[in-house]
Amino acid sequence: MSQNKSLYDQRGVSAHKEEVLSATEKLDKGLFPFAFCKLYPDYLCKDDAFVNVMHADGAGTKSILAYLYWKETGDISVWKGIAQDAIVMNLDDLLCVGIFTDIVFNSTIDRNKHLIPGSVLNTIINGSQSIFDMLHSYGVEIHYLGGETADVGDVVRTVAVNGTMTARWPKKKVITNEKIQPGDVIVGLASYGKANYENEYNSGIGSNGLTSARHDAIEKSYANQYPESFDPGLNDDVVYIGKNRLTDNPLEAENHFENLGKMLLSPTRTYAPVIMKMLQNHFEDIHGLIHCSGGGQTKCLKYLPGNMKVVKDNLFNPPPVFQLLQKNSNSSNREMFEVFNMGCRLEIYCPESSASGFISLAQSFGIDAQIIGRVEEDVKKSLEIRFGDEVIVYS
Amino acid sequence: MSQNKSLYDQRGVSAHKEEVLSATEKLDKGLFPFAFCKLYPDYLCKDDAFVNVMHADGAGTKSILAYLYWKETGDISVWKGIAQDAIVMNLDDLLCVGIFTDIVFNSTIDRNKHLIPGSVLNTIINGSQSIFDMLHSYGVEIHYLGGETADVGDVVRTVAVNGTMTARWPKKKVITNEKIQPGDVIVGLASYGKANYENEYNSGIGSNGLTSARHDAIEKSYANQYPESFDPGLNDDVVYIGKNRLTDNPLEAENHFENLGKMLLSPTRTYAPVIMKMLQNHFEDIHGLIHCSGGGQTKCLKYLPGNMKVVKDNLFNPPPVFQLLQKNSNSSNREMFEVFNMGCRLEIYCPESSASGFISLAQSFGIDAQIIGRVEEDVKKSLEIRFGDEVIVYS
Repeated sequence: MSQNKSLYDQRGVSAHKEEVLSATEKLDKGLFPFAFCKLYPDYLCKDDAFVNVMHADGAGTKSILAYLYWKETGDISVWKGIAQDAIVMNLDDLLCVGIFTDIVFNSTIDRNKHLIPGSVLNTIINGSQSIFDMLHSYGVEIHYLGGETADVGDVVRTVAVNGTMTARWPKKKVITNEKIQPGDVIVGLASYGKANYENEYNSGIGSNGLTSARHDAIEKSYANQYPESFDPGLNDDVVYIGKNRLTDNPLEAENHFENLGKMLLSPTRTYAPVIMKMLQNHFEDIHGLIHCSGGGQTKCLKYLPGNMKVVKDNLFNPPPVFQLLQKNSNSSNREMFEVFNMGCRLEIYCPESSASGFISLAQSFGIDAQIIGRVEEDVKKSLEIRFGDEVIVYS
Repeated sequence: MSQNKSLYDQRGVSAHKEEVLSATEKLDKGLFPFAFCKLYPDYLCKDDAFVNVMHADGAGTKSILAYLYWKETGDISVWKGIAQDAIVMNLDDLLCVGIFTDIVFNSTIDRNKHLIPGSVLNTIINGSQSIFDMLHSYGVEIHYLGGETADVGDVVRTVAVNGTMTARWPKKKVITNEKIQPGDVIVGLASYGKANYENEYNSGIGSNGLTSARHDAIEKSYANQYPESFDPGLNDDVVYIGKNRLTDNPLEAENHFENLGKMLLSPTRTYAPVIMKMLQNHFEDIHGLIHCSGGGQTKCLKYLPGNMKVVKDNLFNPPPVFQLLQKNSNSSNREMFEVFNMGCRLEIYCPESSASGFISLAQSFGIDAQIIGRVEEDVKKSLEIRFGDEVIVYS
């Protein structure tokens, strides 16, 4: 086990969730074993031609970064970004089974009332509604059906922001990933930049790997100043081992962000407007969809429908945020690709002939896209990332 | 403000959630303002004759009691009780709008991986499925559609166990509470005892007021031994100010439980099997349904459809668990009724002529029931609890 693997483990996070997989082993796995989300019969309306899905996810430890930044600068608007993270971590997972509208959502916010005042709740909750209003203007209908906010300071140090989405969808319009096959190419959509439905430049960080990012990026003094921002059971060696304050701008001229805090808190982009168009107009050409969330660029390995090799040899140049994090943590490329999206958060598996159409469509929304790799025949499931002169193999 | 109100406040909990109400003020309140859960148009299937509901709730700080008990005794089975608490806090809320079956559920578990191992996840997740299996045998169909388990030890001290339920229901079969009127009587269902669908005697504690219960019941030594079990920002005066260990049996002969821990961890009873029968056979006679959760016996005040006075003058004698907690905390009766269910966790508002039928039906399930009060005309909304010689008025 490499030094940084152990760092990750020492911090009590896991990219692969072995214990969770074991705990859920006996549960109903749904209708399509390789689909990105579990899909079930239409229990809600009892129509064989439809499926139901229920999905839960949240902003994870990114809420702690928002807390620190808000405490330091007084800028409460970062909590709207946390609302967006919790929403997009659900929505973009649903996109990967082909669902892009007619979704119901509710939120679960667990807070320490002594540290998180009503004004923060206000920003998160009304921020969620304003994100749904924006999506509505692109034809993505998500209805906010309330939620629960609990004052549980004995459980939660600061705040946990989670959400759940439920949807019902025609069975013949779901993406099951079963069509992924040797010969397919992979169109990757950039996680960074500024889409024409976004108001601000996006760093690409997303909502995964944020425990590592926070501890690796910011300096030790945060540990004394904000003991509520980390587990006191952690070894001091892994707590806030970075070089900067959140208000520093360590990249200077190269950077689109006023400071490190804003770069790390850049809200997770949703691909809903662009994936909706692809699903509506080119459904048959989409062989598979993968959201590079937990597990980063290795996520695809979990959803391959048979023995085959995924080769990614033309990934985007990782945007500055990942370069900075790698510099701070001295992580290997292997580790970086396992934890972070590294600039590409959505993958479309498709015939080579369809790729240019998907790329043009993404570009028409202001999102960079390119063929990042392909699927080859093999006798087992594997992933090969070629990055510079390095060949990294996962299986 | 009385001494104990301030205790409650100092512990960072709130029975009335003023800040949450303010934060959600601008959101869509749904179709029926007095219904126990927010009900929305049928976004999932677009049928005017149906409504959708999405509900989130959890075991709150009861998970900390399970943690302490499990650490002290090694008895991992208490985590199945936490699964039940998270489920019933959702299900019994849905019962109050008339929904008792065809529900989809998923869970959100946020854990500190260093303290909560896979075996605990296993017990919670598979325990949830076994509760649904039991409910299935009574005609209550809840489908477990997975969920999210996140390793977020920097956010969560031990573990937060939450769940979400989504349902779709005929509009003409929802309970809106709009029929609650002067002249109605209130049939109360006991929160304690042993229903014939339960395997163990129930203390009646439920899942509300557990922050108070834990700190008021157990002794100071827990603070040093388990610093991960409470907010270090709390004043020492309000942390673990009780007299006992969890393995003590402070009530001795009077008690159905082997010790204090088991009594406090007694899983929240669901009323689903009995309320289902009432809704199926006597829908028109049910004017309103109230789950006495957060806010305890004062919960009904939020759902009265007009000016009227609720008089509760024949409540159950509070079971031993509440007597013990009151003795430890020196709380007034006023405070106890505002925080705890005090022996009655579900209220049926109905014409007097229907009451005996509802009471017999509950008793046929082994659940104690009686007319606990009535609704009277008044020029404002108020609640009067008569308890012994005391008259307690809330408005």
